[in-house]
Formats: sequence, structure tokens, C-alpha cells
Amino acid sequence: MARMLLKKKGVDIVGGIDIGDKIGKPLHEVIGVEASEKASVPVGTVEDYITEKKADIVLLCTDSFTTKSFDKIKLIVENKMNVITSAEEMAYPQAQNPELAKQMDDLAKANGVSILGTGINPGLMMDLLVVMMTGCCEEIEHITAKRINSLSPFGKAVMEEQGIGTSVAEFEQGIADGSIAGHVGFHESIAMVADAVGWQLDGEIRQTMAAIVTDVDRKAPYGEALAGQVAGVAMNGYGSVDGEEKIVMEHPQQIEPEQVGVHTGDYVQIKGTPPINMMNTPEVEGGIGTIAMCVNMIPQVINATPGLKTMLDLPVPRAIMGDMRDRIERGDTHA
Amino acid sequence: MARMLLKKKGVDIVGGIDIGDKIGKPLHEVIGVEASEKASVPVGTVEDYITEKKADIVLLCTDSFTTKSFDKIKLIVENKMNVITSAEEMAYPQAQNPELAKQMDDLAKANGVSILGTGINPGLMMDLLVVMMTGCCEEIEHITAKRINSLSPFGKAVMEEQGIGTSVAEFEQGIADGSIAGHVGFHESIAMVADAVGWQLDGEIRQTMAAIVTDVDRKAPYGEALAGQVAGVAMNGYGSVDGEEKIVMEHPQQIEPEQVGVHTGDYVQIKGTPPINMMNTPEVEGGIGTIAMCVNMIPQVINATPGLKTMLDLPVPRAIMGDMRDRIERGDTHA
Repeated sequence: MARMLLKKKGVDIVGGIDIGDKIGKPLHEVIGVEASEKASVPVGTVEDYITEKKADIVLLCTDSFTTKSFDKIKLIVENKMNVITSAEEMAYPQAQNPELAKQMDDLAKANGVSILGTGINPGLMMDLLVVMMTGCCEEIEHITAKRINSLSPFGKAVMEEQGIGTSVAEFEQGIADGSIAGHVGFHESIAMVADAVGWQLDGEIRQTMAAIVTDVDRKAPYGEALAGQVAGVAMNGYGSVDGEEKIVMEHPQQIEPEQVGVHTGDYVQIKGTPPINMMNTPEVEGGIGTIAMCVNMIPQVINATPGLKTMLDLPVPRAIMGDMRDRIERGDTHA
Repeated sequence: MARMLLKKKGVDIVGGIDIGDKIGKPLHEVIGVEASEKASVPVGTVEDYITEKKADIVLLCTDSFTTKSFDKIKLIVENKMNVITSAEEMAYPQAQNPELAKQMDDLAKANGVSILGTGINPGLMMDLLVVMMTGCCEEIEHITAKRINSLSPFGKAVMEEQGIGTSVAEFEQGIADGSIAGHVGFHESIAMVADAVGWQLDGEIRQTMAAIVTDVDRKAPYGEALAGQVAGVAMNGYGSVDGEEKIVMEHPQQIEPEQVGVHTGDYVQIKGTPPINMMNTPEVEGGIGTIAMCVNMIPQVINATPGLKTMLDLPVPRAIMGDMRDRIERGDTHA
């Protein structure tokens, strides 16, 4: 995100926060770009940078879960700065942590700032895009969203979280002890879609998780799976409405899917009037997509009225090819 | 739209406006549905229904052009009612009528209401969807949007506007005298995309228009084209940025495209980081799509702060499967 921001006009990076021996280094060194006035602000601690109105907005990319990011968001908001976070559950904290969502909304309003969780998924492919396509439907009956993607571009941490290269027994153990998380976001995406279209979910969503065991050796830059080992995780999520699973999400993630003839892509299928049969192939890469979504939503979050926002509340994300300052509304009125 | 509204919870139709011998008839008779308390309000005149705060919102579906719809919108707004119009140019009146757009914005603000132009295209497929997909891009270099659709579901008026069944000479004449309009909306969609991503257009957009002459006889419910006659219109639009046509729109419309092996669909192709290669096949039918977009945006327009709005300003459209009243925000705050 810092590298992307450095390429954009009309925005300055106030500083970066990290831990360990990165503290004190110039940002450009930590993110691996050329030194320059803009790129060389020092990396510091929370105490250095989370101070009152130090910046217009903070990009928080430290956690996946609302409970884990809550204290950090609280501190930022109390220092009167807007927040965008890539924490998956924060895309719709109303789904699993409604009390924390209410607290964040109150805190944001009390401090005159806004909070948004976003990313490629949750944030766009299995929720906002789905919702928008229902917008050209008179009636909808059933929704299937699929994201069939490659894990190959990801780093070591993701390989471990997804159990790449484990045996099936190790994989089962990893799921049991929580060390293999798979995709975080079905609760959020399903609740977001249901709330958006006005479907009342019958209760908890149902989620399944299975190892994708490879028949052939597969090798990605940061992980490998030999024949018989786990090359990925297939997760499905189901939201039931009026006794029927009307919202279905399928999200198999694996390294080197092309090697076994799996075509990657993002898919939205809506049974309705009219039907929707949409695909984006190949899929938007998760890392780049999430970086872009978080950065591109900065103007919308700065312009928003105070409170906890979701992608359902704000104008659509868009690339920023001009000066970011041109997007910022001045004065008291908000669209 | 009236038929769709009658199927939705939490909304009442105050009345319908029409001309000629439809005036005085119950709405259900004019739109061809069963009589009922809700469906049987009388169809009346402008004077009957465009009175102060007669309704929360008026759906205006009478024109394609901003200049033609301006007086009607003014009258509605001065009667303190919100407006959604399907007039294609009103999707982005800033493109071709910036002074009228400013006047409408001022009028809407003075009367505390909002104005929106929307539809399937312009309104979604070649603009809002394109913009949203740029939202997951770090950089974009070139955009192509295609809408390859069938005119077969449309009625007699569209057949005439598109020159279906004319000879090539009659078609050329129809373009020259303006009786064959083709697609209205490229100026709007291209300006909307350019403004959204922060690209400065070099000047006027370039537009091309050619007859689709059929090799075989084609027959649709309300129009036909024999071999050698015009079966549709292929229109392209080009927006130039930094001397390069970076926004390209291709929109061939014809009756019975399947008969000659043309696969219909909506397509978004973005050269960027990452690239986007999206398709929806077959295309969303224009009539249903526009009806749904106009009705589904009602809550967003009622909730909006006063002024002239575009699809770029408001939360995304979404199907309304619950009670429409649940979508309406009470009080002074707007998201």
C-alpha cells in the first residue's frame, strides 16, 4: 500500500508503523523502493504516529479478526483519524461482533471520523459486486458467488495459514487447533449480501472446509505440495433464507491450479429476473486487489459522515489516476 | 416500473401520469394487471399529481435527452419531490449540458430533494460497473466496455428508432435527419468513467455509427429485417486521454443476433494492474434492467443529501426483496 501511495499524486505518507529492527529505518528501505523525500519518512512505533490528527487516515493491516483489531481501531479513532483496515471480519463486523460494531460506530461518531473494512474479498468479489448485480434485477431467487483462485503469488505466511504441503492428517489437525484458518470472510460476505437485498438469514451460516489433495507435485515460489499432500483449501459458505440455502459461496484456493486444469476466476450467478451469469477470468489477484481497494477507498472514507461504514454505504471504489486531493470534498455537506 | 413497484413491500403508488384516453382510467387497466386497492389509483394529468409533496419520489420516463426532460424535472423538484429518470443523458448531464446540470443541482438543493438519472446503460453496464472494477486496480491504462445485445425484446418504437428493416439508403437518411438515433449515452458513460478515475478527456468524444446489414431474413416480435436490410446499429464511442483513445465503448444492437452466431453479453476489459477481463452472458436485457435500476435506486435517492446526483455519488444499487421502508434513513444524517 505504501508503494502504491507513493505513485499517486496529492497524497503524502506521514509515516509507517512496524515492529522490531524496522523501527527507525527510512520507509523506502523497509518497502524496497528508491530513496526520495516522500518515500523516506521514518518507520516508527505506535506512540510515534498514533497521535491526535497526525494524519487524515490510517491504513491498518495487522489482523483478520474484529476482536484482534478492535483496540487498534479504537486508539486511532480516539486520536481523531479515519481508518481503513484490511481485516477481513471488519468488512462487516455487524455479522459476528454486533456489539463491537456498535461501539466502533459510537466511537467514530464521537470523534468525527469514519471506519471502513475492505479488500478484494471480502470487500468486492463475493459481496459488493454481487450486490451491485442484483441492482439490475426485479426479483432474485438464488445467488452463487465463486472465487477460484491461485495461492501461488502469496508468501510464506499464507502458505502456512492454508496448510500448503501438509499431509492430510496434519491438515485435519491444523483445522482442529485453528492454525489452518482458510478463508476468513464468508460470514461477512453472506451477511452483507443478505442485509443489502433485504433477505433475513435463518440463523448461523454453514461453512465447509476440505483439503485439496494434489495428484501431482506442485511448486509455487513460497510453498510446494508433493503428490498426496495438501495443495490448497476448498471452502464453501451457505446462508439460509426461508429454509433454503439461497446464498452459496464457493472458494477453492490452491497453489498452481493451472497445472491440474483448474481455470481461475471470479463468478457471480444470480437466479432472478433477469438472471446474471458473470465471470472475471483469471481472478483478480488477492494481494494486489486488496492493496488497491484499501488505497482507492481513501477519498470515500475521508468524505463520509462519521461512523462505522461498510462498502454498502459508500460510493463505489474507483482507480485514482488523477490528484487524490481532487476527490476530497470540502465543507460540511456529504453526498 | 409500476408493475414492479406493485410487487414490492412498503411502497405505495400515489398515481400515474399519462396522456390521451388513458387519463381517468385506473392504473391497473393501463398497465395490464389485476385490479386491487394498490393497483387501481387513477391515471391522471401532470396537474393532478405534480403538486407539492404529493409523493416522496417521481419516476420520470418520457425522454432520452436532458434538454427535453429539464422542464419536467424542474416542475417536479419545485414541488419538493425527488426524481429518478431513465433519460439516458440524465445519467451524467454534466457531460453535454453542464449549465443545465448546475441549474438542476441548485434547484434540487433549494427544494431539499435529489435528482438521479439511471438505467441499465447508461447507469450500470458501460459505466458504473466499469468504474467499480477499476477500484481493485492500482493503475489503469486502457478500458474497453462492450455491450452486445439483442433488440428483439423491444417494441415498435425502438424498432423505428434503430432503423430495423430499413434499406441502407433509408438508414443513412434516418441518421442524417435524426430519426434513427441509435444508442444515446456514450458521452455520458465515457465522461462518467473519465471523471471517476481522474482522467482528463482531451476534448469531444468520437462516435461512429454503422448499419448492421443482415445476410439472412430475421424476424423479431415487433420488427423484421429481410436479407440486405438493416437488422441493427453498431455504435462505437471513444474517449481520448493524453492523445490516446483510452476509453473505448462498443455497442452493436440488433434483432435476433443468435441467428447469425453473435453471442450477446456485457464485457469489461481493463488493461491495468491487475487486468480485468469480465463478461456477463447473455447481456442483461435492456428493458428489465432499466426498470429494475430505476426502482431499486429509490431508497438511495430518498436518503441522499439534496442535489443532482449520479451513480458515482450514491451507494450501489441492490435488489429490494424486503420492505422498502427499512431502507429509508430517518433523521438528518446521511451516509
